[in-house]
Amino acid sequence: MDKRKRKIINDPVYGFIPVTSSLLFDLLEHPWVQRLRRIRQLGLTYLVYPGANHTRFQHSLGASYLMGQALQSLQGKDVPVSAEETLSASVAILLHDIGHGPFSHALEETIIKGLSHEQLSLLFMEQLNQEFGGQLDDALKIFQGRYPRKFFNQLISGQLDMDRMDYLQRDSYFTGVSEGIIGLERIIKMLYVQEEELVVEEKGIYSLEKFVLARRLMYWQVYFHKTVVSAEQLLLKILARARQLAENREKLFVTPALHYFLYDRYPKKKVETLTARERKELLDRFSLLDDNDIITSAKVWSESSDPVLSNLCRRLVNRKLFHVEIQDHPFEEEKECRIRRKMMKDYGFSEAETAFFVFTNTISNFAYSPKDHQIKILRKDGSVQDITAVSEIMDQNIISRIVEKHILCYPKEYTNN
Amino acid sequence: MDKRKRKIINDPVYGFIPVTSSLLFDLLEHPWVQRLRRIRQLGLTYLVYPGANHTRFQHSLGASYLMGQALQSLQGKDVPVSAEETLSASVAILLHDIGHGPFSHALEETIIKGLSHEQLSLLFMEQLNQEFGGQLDDALKIFQGRYPRKFFNQLISGQLDMDRMDYLQRDSYFTGVSEGIIGLERIIKMLYVQEEELVVEEKGIYSLEKFVLARRLMYWQVYFHKTVVSAEQLLLKILARARQLAENREKLFVTPALHYFLYDRYPKKKVETLTARERKELLDRFSLLDDNDIITSAKVWSESSDPVLSNLCRRLVNRKLFHVEIQDHPFEEEKECRIRRKMMKDYGFSEAETAFFVFTNTISNFAYSPKDHQIKILRKDGSVQDITAVSEIMDQNIISRIVEKHILCYPKEYTNN
Amino acid sequence: MDKRKRKIINDPVYGFIPVTSSLLFDLLEHPWVQRLRRIRQLGLTYLVYPGANHTRFQHSLGASYLMGQALQSLQGKDVPVSAEETLSASVAILLHDIGHGPFSHALEETIIKGLSHEQLSLLFMEQLNQEFGGQLDDALKIFQGRYPRKFFNQLISGQLDMDRMDYLQRDSYFTGVSEGIIGLERIIKMLYVQEEELVVEEKGIYSLEKFVLARRLMYWQVYFHKTVVSAEQLLLKILARARQLAENREKLFVTPALHYFLYDRYPKKKVETLTARERKELLDRFSLLDDNDIITSAKVWSESSDPVLSNLCRRLVNRKLFHVEIQDHPFEEEKECRIRRKMMKDYGFSEAETAFFVFTNTISNFAYSPKDHQIKILRKDGSVQDITAVSEIMDQNIISRIVEKHILCYPKEYTNN
Amino acid sequence: MDKRKRKIINDPVYGFIPVTSSLLFDLLEHPWVQRLRRIRQLGLTYLVYPGANHTRFQHSLGASYLMGQALQSLQGKDVPVSAEETLSASVAILLHDIGHGPFSHALEETIIKGLSHEQLSLLFMEQLNQEFGGQLDDALKIFQGRYPRKFFNQLISGQLDMDRMDYLQRDSYFTGVSEGIIGLERIIKMLYVQEEELVVEEKGIYSLEKFVLARRLMYWQVYFHKTVVSAEQLLLKILARARQLAENREKLFVTPALHYFLYDRYPKKKVETLTARERKELLDRFSLLDDNDIITSAKVWSESSDPVLSNLCRRLVNRKLFHVEIQDHPFEEEKECRIRRKMMKDYGFSEAETAFFVFTNTISNFAYSPKDHQIKILRKDGSVQDITAVSEIMDQNIISRIVEKHILCYPKEYTNN
Repeated sequence: MDKRKRKIINDPVYGFIPVTSSLLFDLLEHPWVQRLRRIRQLGLTYLVYPGANHTRFQHSLGASYLMGQALQSLQGKDVPVSAEETLSASVAILLHDIGHGPFSHALEETIIKGLSHEQLSLLFMEQLNQEFGGQLDDALKIFQGRYPRKFFNQLISGQLDMDRMDYLQRDSYFTGVSEGIIGLERIIKMLYVQEEELVVEEKGIYSLEKFVLARRLMYWQVYFHKTVVSAEQLLLKILARARQLAENREKLFVTPALHYFLYDRYPKKKVETLTARERKELLDRFSLLDDNDIITSAKVWSESSDPVLSNLCRRLVNRKLFHVEIQDHPFEEEKECRIRRKMMKDYGFSEAETAFFVFTNTISNFAYSPKDHQIKILRKDGSVQDITAVSEIMDQNIISRIVEKHILCYPKEYTNN
Repeated sequence: MDKRKRKIINDPVYGFIPVTSSLLFDLLEHPWVQRLRRIRQLGLTYLVYPGANHTRFQHSLGASYLMGQALQSLQGKDVPVSAEETLSASVAILLHDIGHGPFSHALEETIIKGLSHEQLSLLFMEQLNQEFGGQLDDALKIFQGRYPRKFFNQLISGQLDMDRMDYLQRDSYFTGVSEGIIGLERIIKMLYVQEEELVVEEKGIYSLEKFVLARRLMYWQVYFHKTVVSAEQLLLKILARARQLAENREKLFVTPALHYFLYDRYPKKKVETLTARERKELLDRFSLLDDNDIITSAKVWSESSDPVLSNLCRRLVNRKLFHVEIQDHPFEEEKECRIRRKMMKDYGFSEAETAFFVFTNTISNFAYSPKDHQIKILRKDGSVQDITAVSEIMDQNIISRIVEKHILCYPKEYTNN
Repeated sequence: MDKRKRKIINDPVYGFIPVTSSLLFDLLEHPWVQRLRRIRQLGLTYLVYPGANHTRFQHSLGASYLMGQALQSLQGKDVPVSAEETLSASVAILLHDIGHGPFSHALEETIIKGLSHEQLSLLFMEQLNQEFGGQLDDALKIFQGRYPRKFFNQLISGQLDMDRMDYLQRDSYFTGVSEGIIGLERIIKMLYVQEEELVVEEKGIYSLEKFVLARRLMYWQVYFHKTVVSAEQLLLKILARARQLAENREKLFVTPALHYFLYDRYPKKKVETLTARERKELLDRFSLLDDNDIITSAKVWSESSDPVLSNLCRRLVNRKLFHVEIQDHPFEEEKECRIRRKMMKDYGFSEAETAFFVFTNTISNFAYSPKDHQIKILRKDGSVQDITAVSEIMDQNIISRIVEKHILCYPKEYTNN
Repeated sequence: MDKRKRKIINDPVYGFIPVTSSLLFDLLEHPWVQRLRRIRQLGLTYLVYPGANHTRFQHSLGASYLMGQALQSLQGKDVPVSAEETLSASVAILLHDIGHGPFSHALEETIIKGLSHEQLSLLFMEQLNQEFGGQLDDALKIFQGRYPRKFFNQLISGQLDMDRMDYLQRDSYFTGVSEGIIGLERIIKMLYVQEEELVVEEKGIYSLEKFVLARRLMYWQVYFHKTVVSAEQLLLKILARARQLAENREKLFVTPALHYFLYDRYPKKKVETLTARERKELLDRFSLLDDNDIITSAKVWSESSDPVLSNLCRRLVNRKLFHVEIQDHPFEEEKECRIRRKMMKDYGFSEAETAFFVFTNTISNFAYSPKDHQIKILRKDGSVQDITAVSEIMDQNIISRIVEKHILCYPKEYTNN
């Protein structure tokens, strides 16, 4: 490869990550990928874990590195993998999250309704494929599960994909929650391919169990941490309120990148029906959005003339978050109403306005695991079985249960009400 | 202490950091401290080391934690330290960097000339002391070196202070440059106090040598890394150009927080001569500024009608940084002129405009070490000597040399010219 | 405390371990404790994991350190713990394994039948208590579960004791099996005391689950690793054969320390019926035994005139271990017989002699967890429940199941027979 | 390669070490290499750093692994290295320490005078080469510096060889002295070959400086630690006394392996003049010796009828080490005499006997660095210079100075005399 494109990137999690091809180099240099440097992997989690400022750029790079490690290990076990396949798989996973916007969960629920990051990732990749003259054809196939050798896709999007391997390890490193550390090297060494599907050698079963539990632990310790949930709900309400004001044509300060979406200037059609030009514009506009737009706007809105928006934003900026109660079953309406009534009285808010401060919601881990639910074990006798049949502790519940929790949020001052 | 203020913060570098007093809790909750969550410790270094997104908040917290560790170790060696002193010293170091703005080096050289972060830190602390009814009196004394027991100040601002201990360790953790790791625990255990001054027990000499070298290594590997320097120079030029346009009353998009400073609305007097009200306003305004304002503005300026500003900003946003040459002696003017002439021709820029793209400068490590230059060793016979007299490799050069380097920057396309 | 007894020990697992009292210092200096430096924590495991040379000395010291950490954390939550109690608990756990001989499992089954390390630990502690003028009274009470505040004993010998915490962490560090790493600091921070019993705060549940799984993983990856089992079985046969020869009054080279036990010179009575003098002699003799005696003897026996003993020993010394098959149910006798017959023919051994090379056995994890089986969770509402009622994945099976496996061992050359 | 010889070894320092060829597998299985599992890398250092029980086996394996990493990195920079060369270099470094006996420094000075481990390593390798039908020809050439491409030998035995890289990293890991940690990965990535000599790219200079300092620090913190020196001197005296008694034909208990050497049964000729048969016997005998023989003998000698030997041995076994004074210049005879006289009176020893307890000696780091003293830097302009010309702090003193220190040892009870 071109000597000027030879590059090593220092990653605190894995040490040194070499850029192994010109295509990868060029993609990493692309503004759409560079932009991921400005989007935190864990959104507002840094308000709870001060170290959690790592970005989607780091994660994408790390996942791509792990893909190379996994494929190298498979080759060592005589699974044929061509250099082209390695490159395509590395590209596919490098770009798998490229469609994420800032704080994407909150954003998708409020301002860019109808545009999921999955759809956008695909649009971005297709556009890049055009720019790079079709070099991403196979990467796209792998990404979409259209590539004949199924295990490539499973390494990107399955129970044991390199996406998860990287984010667990990385989130653990940056939050400092050491229980998320997984025996990465050992799991990768236990991977194998049987009839083009990913399997795990039987002796890796205990490492797998620990991996699944580490993931579960990270959910409760980090991703669903009460205060993290509280911060995310607050941002959701902020964006919802801003959107409401925008719909009412109230004039708000807003960064140009966010303005386009907040004031609804993007084509409201199904993604598939966009013209080439509309697509291009959508992507160009979207790619200008990042964490800075949201945080900057929220800071300015702290001084907004709308008392709801300004109150919400001051809470976010100064980290005066809502109190959150979490439980398995729905909350009784009565409690919510009681608090609302008090707040209406104290603040002079209308019922509708109070609903931005006192509300229930449900959260579920669905967002994190819409993945193929099977982990297949290659037994010593050569047969393949699902892990739930082999492990003494694993059942479908633990591997992929979609947990739904009910939450009730309200300002801290009403805690004893 | 109040049970509700009992708190443990997860820090990936040290594990768990307990908040040990109500005062510390309240200070941590203060918007002025929370704001440090939005200011990266290493500015644009994340463009080179993708993990370097850690913030001044983390660093301040970490340094405060180390202060507690150091004082506890001294107590264990029968150096009397009262609980009040421990609290004051912890507060002083927690707040020692509170006056930093975003990318403060570039900012101070362009937009808030005449306002150093040292001055601002002091203003902030004095204001907080008022708010907290004088509870910070001793912290201020320690911070300013007015406290009679000198070693407290030396632990904040000396060759072996907890500030350095933390930032070396932390910058190393987040950049992944493992050579910056220092034997923190051992150095802290070797500290002692002799006649109220900080000394190091002789057997700690090798750890010290390694510490000093690790610091030196971090300078060249990280703080003065060519590409980091290049990014910082670019930002400097961006802010200088924006300032120039603002002085010419050109209308620029700019976040409100930045607008106040960019358009020169703050009182241009010596800090000491500000009225109480002016002080308060300055601090309030300044405390609204953070990384988001700078990055957001630069993103918008990418589309500015000023071709110089837009070109510079596109370079920053898309990471098309200048090429940098570094050397010990000044560059010959001829080379700079030759490149300038070419660029003027290629871009149709005036000479003055070209100077934003092709320029020389000097960089020095002065900013990082304006500290008391002595490290005192307590010899086994009870005498105290400077480390340079005891160590075989340490001389004043290595400990505190102010290195000045000359740099020449220009767009990459002129590399072979 | 006496300045000359102030000491810091470098432990790679925890960093620095300070010796915090004169009594601990004196105990650490005692030959009976020093002797633990010559007994590997994991016996022959180093034949599989080359790093596993860590000793019972390191483990005892580490567990004692963790005890201090745990008690300090409890004090921080207003559980009253006196300085005397801290010292007694630290001493108790420091000495909890003092009765271990070299490769104690194999030794106890062959040469010192009827003398368990638990009994011996108690004898040693009682003897030390005499030497130290009764300073160990409370440590003994805690060790034996006679101390009124039950949680002290639970910290030494329960599901969450500091013994386990240390050995999992340490065995993981020295074997390199990273999956054994537990979130030690977090678990310790979650401990609490309710009605003088140890409980865990509810929010620690995921860390606990991970801890239990890490333990399970270490069993299968390390403690019951096939090749480790094979090596241990081999040593067992060596000692059994040596013992048989000794009973037949064959003259064997043997180190004096081992000679005393191998040739049955120690009083064969119930420990409780030993006279003071017999006890003292037993302990003095036993304390001379360590790994070196066993390995040295095995090396010499490689040249023994007894062909069974020499063959077995050469296998151990040169690491030509038995092949092991492991399964959940007993092996069919037929297979064992078939291999025995072949070996008898090949080597000219008698049936009885062949039984040293081809044999079945059962292994169980009983030895590792004869501990109180409950983990009690302190729920947020103040109630206390067993973890199995709170956790979704924990059942008694996983926490404390006594697993029994059947093994069949034979020389590798008969693998395909 | 043969599937049955595919193997991965768990190394706590590097994670997983794969055995990459049949020849390496067979060598690792060889009793002469297995024997290194019973020889500690750092001799008696475990008496000071309880974790320092790692063995020469682990170190040899680790160094061999690093050799593979270094050669792979060089290949990535287009330095041609054939698979055969990689294998030979890996074998050469795997075996470079095979001639070490237990506690070799003490042993070589007393019992096997005239037989250095360097000579023995060569003898062992030549013998193995015969056994393996000449497959070690090139490994031998590389080991002895006879291979035409010089850098291979420099990777085994030079300032930057993989031997050092491994032992610094490993000794640091097992002692817990974190300052010994070096930026291994970065240094290896900076290696290059110019005219078949090993050079380091200029940008690696700061890592190199830190490496050299880390080494220096390990000397003083570990290898020359006062108490380590004290323990080694004690063992030296023990072996010297035992040898003296043996020469006087006193009968001592001694393990058979040690007996051969202690009682002088090995041919006392120059190694080069040994017959093939004598060589073979010498190696066979020597390969039976390990740490167990020395420690076992010392334990038994604690009860020896010779009061000098028994006193010395009790000190070692129970860790009642000598007090050591260290200084740069020789001790005045008067002090030594004064202590001797007291001891003679107290113990009734003769002058000659007392000399085993009260003595001076010199120690030097020579043993650790008899290596090629140059580190060559490849400057950016393509020229090659010595590091001392490029670095601001490195001079010959620091890189390779042979430091000689004078010590005075005597029993602790005479400390204030």
